[in-house]
Amino acid sequence: MQLARVIGDVVATQKDPNFDGIKLLLVQPIGADGKDVGRPLVAVDSVGAGVAETIFFVRGKEASFPWYPTEVPADAGIVGIVDSYHVPQR
Amino acid sequence: MQLARVIGDVVATQKDPNFDGIKLLLVQPIGADGKDVGRPLVAVDSVGAGVAETIFFVRGKEASFPWYPTEVPADAGIVGIVDSYHVPQR
Amino acid sequence: MQLARVIGDVVATQKDPNFDGIKLLLVQPIGADGKDVGRPLVAVDSVGAGVAETIFFVRGKEASFPWYPTEVPADAGIVGIVDSYHVPQR
Amino acid sequence: MQLARVIGDVVATQKDPNFDGIKLLLVQPIGADGKDVGRPLVAVDSVGAGVAETIFFVRGKEASFPWYPTEVPADAGIVGIVDSYHVPQR
Amino acid sequence: MQLARVIGDVVATQKDPNFDGIKLLLVQPIGADGKDVGRPLVAVDSVGAGVAETIFFVRGKEASFPWYPTEVPADAGIVGIVDSYHVPQR
Repeated sequence: MQLARVIGDVVATQKDPNFDGIKLLLVQPIGADGKDVGRPLVAVDSVGAGVAETIFFVRGKEASFPWYPTEVPADAGIVGIVDSYHVPQR
Repeated sequence: MQLARVIGDVVATQKDPNFDGIKLLLVQPIGADGKDVGRPLVAVDSVGAGVAETIFFVRGKEASFPWYPTEVPADAGIVGIVDSYHVPQR
Repeated sequence: MQLARVIGDVVATQKDPNFDGIKLLLVQPIGADGKDVGRPLVAVDSVGAGVAETIFFVRGKEASFPWYPTEVPADAGIVGIVDSYHVPQR
Repeated sequence: MQLARVIGDVVATQKDPNFDGIKLLLVQPIGADGKDVGRPLVAVDSVGAGVAETIFFVRGKEASFPWYPTEVPADAGIVGIVDSYHVPQR
Repeated sequence: MQLARVIGDVVATQKDPNFDGIKLLLVQPIGADGKDVGRPLVAVDSVGAGVAETIFFVRGKEASFPWYPTEVPADAGIVGIVDSYHVPQR
């Protein structure tokens, strides 16, 4: 999974009906140092994440598991909110 | 899912027959600032997107879900048209 | 799917037997401007593509669908030959 | 699979319940020369890896196989600890 | 699939038991010109590849097909040894 920071949300009226009622968040992948890496993604959220929180998200079909058996056509889903991570210095 | 702008369409006569009747659009991934990032892709469209619209698309097998049980050999599909997204400034 | 140009073919005697009789082509991904982007890939071909043609290919398991139920261990497959694509200028 | 070094661990209270009891490690992909390449990832661990160890991890759905039939929504999983690797000089 | 050169092998005692008896090789992706591109990967091998050989490997679940029904948690597998490839000059 990838570390990211929630940076916003996305409003879309015209979309696949399987997204109805699902929160769409904009997440910016980050490195272990908290700095942005790569481009932001639109992710579905099942854990109640909010803007500015550090989260980790899963890519691929697994993103839609929380809504099973609804076939949500998602490839990125927030699956955890990071309390802290610990990187010992060598 | 990834943000992108629809930049054109693709005409292909000789193709996998499961694409018949499906619109093939050229989409350019963009960042949260609307700028191009990376290379354009050919995506199938099930939500009625048009050139110049900002959309988000899904990668992988999920791209073909709207045509199930037809096995469309697609790995990128437009699943929503973005009305707006909101990125609060920190 | 990704735009690419067929740049050659690959000869392999010692290979997974499920590739027997399947054409293996070398494809170079391109941008909307026709310029090379990224590294070439080996793709299976079910649509009769030839060297110098512009095609689009699918990544992932979908690449092997045309040979179903044979389980071809492919992750890139040519699924269409591009006649033209149209990118209106903004 | 990709070579990586375990650089830390991740604490997350609010997460998908299918992660309960599963160790979440931060892994930094490395090249054959041991140098960092690309961004770190959060991976599940089923082989008892610890910080500073060189491991290889698998991406995609396979990451969750060790917990089957629990549907762990993971896309990166440590599947081996590297004792050594040998790169003959040409 | 991707072109690569086998550059070494990997020894791992502590690993997912489904890897038992399977050769783990280190492969370096290459371009059509034979030059290294990107980082090396650990791949399973079912075709008898050896160090210095040019091969092509498949990514994703397909990597484990040769061992079916054993669920090998692999995402990269060598599926062919390249005898030659031909890139006509334009």
